[in-house]
Amino acid sequence: MSLPEKQTAVRWYPPSYDIRVESAPVSDILDPDDAIVKVTLAGLCGSDLHVYRGSGLTKDHTSGHEFLGEVVKLGSNFGKNVSGRPALYSTLKVGDKVVAPFTVNCGECHVCRLGYTGRCPNGLLFGSPLLEGGQAQFVRVPKAGGTLYNLSDPQAWSLSVSDKNTITAISSIADSSLLLLSDILPTGVFAALQTLNHPKVQPMLTGKSWPNSCLQMTSHMPLAQDPLLPEDRMLNLAIVGLGPVGICAAVSLLDMLARNDLPFRVVAIDPNESRRRKMVAVYNVIPKEDRGKGEFVVQDIEEAKETMKGWTDGIGATAVLEIVGNNSALTLAYDLVRAFGAIISVGVHGSKEMPFKGVQLYNKNVSFDFGRCPARSMFPLAVEVLVRRQDVFGKVGTESSLIDKIVGFDEAKQSYEDFDKGRIGKVLFDPWK
Amino acid sequence: MSLPEKQTAVRWYPPSYDIRVESAPVSDILDPDDAIVKVTLAGLCGSDLHVYRGSGLTKDHTSGHEFLGEVVKLGSNFGKNVSGRPALYSTLKVGDKVVAPFTVNCGECHVCRLGYTGRCPNGLLFGSPLLEGGQAQFVRVPKAGGTLYNLSDPQAWSLSVSDKNTITAISSIADSSLLLLSDILPTGVFAALQTLNHPKVQPMLTGKSWPNSCLQMTSHMPLAQDPLLPEDRMLNLAIVGLGPVGICAAVSLLDMLARNDLPFRVVAIDPNESRRRKMVAVYNVIPKEDRGKGEFVVQDIEEAKETMKGWTDGIGATAVLEIVGNNSALTLAYDLVRAFGAIISVGVHGSKEMPFKGVQLYNKNVSFDFGRCPARSMFPLAVEVLVRRQDVFGKVGTESSLIDKIVGFDEAKQSYEDFDKGRIGKVLFDPWK
Repeated sequence: MSLPEKQTAVRWYPPSYDIRVESAPVSDILDPDDAIVKVTLAGLCGSDLHVYRGSGLTKDHTSGHEFLGEVVKLGSNFGKNVSGRPALYSTLKVGDKVVAPFTVNCGECHVCRLGYTGRCPNGLLFGSPLLEGGQAQFVRVPKAGGTLYNLSDPQAWSLSVSDKNTITAISSIADSSLLLLSDILPTGVFAALQTLNHPKVQPMLTGKSWPNSCLQMTSHMPLAQDPLLPEDRMLNLAIVGLGPVGICAAVSLLDMLARNDLPFRVVAIDPNESRRRKMVAVYNVIPKEDRGKGEFVVQDIEEAKETMKGWTDGIGATAVLEIVGNNSALTLAYDLVRAFGAIISVGVHGSKEMPFKGVQLYNKNVSFDFGRCPARSMFPLAVEVLVRRQDVFGKVGTESSLIDKIVGFDEAKQSYEDFDKGRIGKVLFDPWK
Repeated sequence: MSLPEKQTAVRWYPPSYDIRVESAPVSDILDPDDAIVKVTLAGLCGSDLHVYRGSGLTKDHTSGHEFLGEVVKLGSNFGKNVSGRPALYSTLKVGDKVVAPFTVNCGECHVCRLGYTGRCPNGLLFGSPLLEGGQAQFVRVPKAGGTLYNLSDPQAWSLSVSDKNTITAISSIADSSLLLLSDILPTGVFAALQTLNHPKVQPMLTGKSWPNSCLQMTSHMPLAQDPLLPEDRMLNLAIVGLGPVGICAAVSLLDMLARNDLPFRVVAIDPNESRRRKMVAVYNVIPKEDRGKGEFVVQDIEEAKETMKGWTDGIGATAVLEIVGNNSALTLAYDLVRAFGAIISVGVHGSKEMPFKGVQLYNKNVSFDFGRCPARSMFPLAVEVLVRRQDVFGKVGTESSLIDKIVGFDEAKQSYEDFDKGRIGKVLFDPWK
């Protein structure tokens, strides 16, 4: 296909608050692993605001790391079945609908093979000085066989969903929902999965006390079984931060708890009342039979501290999901968590020093998981949550939807401003509107 | 039995560096759950030096949290089989040989049932203003049915070893080795177990990439299998700090790696040459056939950084065991660990702020496990390591032994001083010598 030479794109200029919608060149294939994607929807994400507000970057670039689209051109390494390379190099076709994670990952190095795609040494962040972003009509995707997820054929990559019903269902999902796969839904799933998979949470899931609950090791260690009492298995969890990612984490967590039939109490926390209202509206949309056998409350900080004390006799939360990325959120998580508890932090943290003294961490036997979601590895799990929770994710512009509206690029500059000021929630751009 | 009224004890006086060996009252049973233990050996531990050097405590007390002995008197709650109480309340007898963890734990609250005995809300540290220590001829053990481990009958508590050979072997182990169960060996086992049980290490153990390696969840999640390549499964590990606990961690880790037939490379690190020499001597004592299929090197800090770079192509260690408890050790662990790696910190940290900025933790997707060893829960695993590694632990005063010498209380004052100045290694006291 011959690509157009020019396109309309949303571009950021240094040092800050300077968004321009302008004509920009369309990139052609630069490397045999590249794909060119025609963007059908692009998202505006909270982390776009880090760049928008000025984080020291000095090079103008096309914004955006959330996009969905259609493959319009493939590099010469596609159409070849090379052993050891991601299957997408042999199966992806022009015309396929694809979504990308917010970072490039090759899918074939040691780090990617382990599943840690968010830290691929060949990784680049879309919408950064090193890689033009997706708030454009066309976007070049490097290492596209490893990076892209083929929504037209979810079996194509080695880590794909295997449930036929899921595959059928994907084709009926709105693009505005599929777009959530690029960042915020996998990040929510990542937080929930790390929580329930944490060794310090395993006693509740397995019914075995620690260290008998150490799954991989026990078959080699002749310890006696010790079924825990039913009351010991209650999961007392807190979610700190109810922005779009926090809500995705809550919905993912509730989904995993319900499917695994685990007893739980979850308090979802935000000081902002409108965010709490959104969280309540989302929860109310979930059918009662899908809410699992637990309690879910939405509270401000001081209420939540009292709630957790009451639930646990002052002992504290089994685990806390920290979805904010600042020191007051981390401190709240520490205050809420029990001794031998886990803090799962997926918030993007900045240059502040950690707010903890060594003795605090030692005295509470705290565990932490920090860092960026390996979104590409999370796609299969995120797709499943998306398919099951269409009641939550399938809406635009309602009280319970994560997406406020879909607008054209003509409203991009104003949308950045409104989003930065907290006047609107999540906005998607239709580059062709 | 009628106890003597007076005994000889090693007592600490505020504010610092004031150790007196003097006559002190023998405590009788104060609570129906108490046991009185006649001490046959007591240890001098690195963490005794925190108190010795002056940490703000203002009340004099008998020192020591490592002791081994014989039950001489039991409270009235013993000899009764009460449902839900630790079995030891019905089985422990006067004359039994027992070891205690360094903290009291009731063994019957929610926290203890989960296995997190090191943070029992009823817990007290032996050798503190709240509980007289074990560097004495007699010691009172509160909550003794939960706290003590019966070496005369290791099946007595619910978390006991089930291997008959192990039970037989315990009776042939020297007291100087059994004393290591009170603190340093379980702490080493704790570090090793947390490392190999960490979710970020699971891909290497299971051969499945993350998140397929999330053991508890996968049966509910229809993900494809993806056997990792053999070279992806290499465990690259570092141990920071080769004091007595660090050596226990190294021996425990090597034992677990060998028994699980895992491929590994371990670098054990200390800036102190005599500690490195001790570590090498210990390693050389382990028979070749028990060393597992891996490489083990002992190096200083700069050498170790280069070694890890070379082993991993610059990617870094799968996990780092931090057995020191200060910020330079934590910083070294951070520098050594890979993205999506784990830092297992069992060092006792003080009042310093953590040496990390949020962005560092986010950018490396680091996980941390901090905190005190729940020694009582670790006893069964620690006993197994002790039995198997008698070649290492069964010695006193040799080049490879963890214990330099056994002395009487008349040498206690001098031993504290020499230990504080680094002039001697670990010393045990025989209160009856």
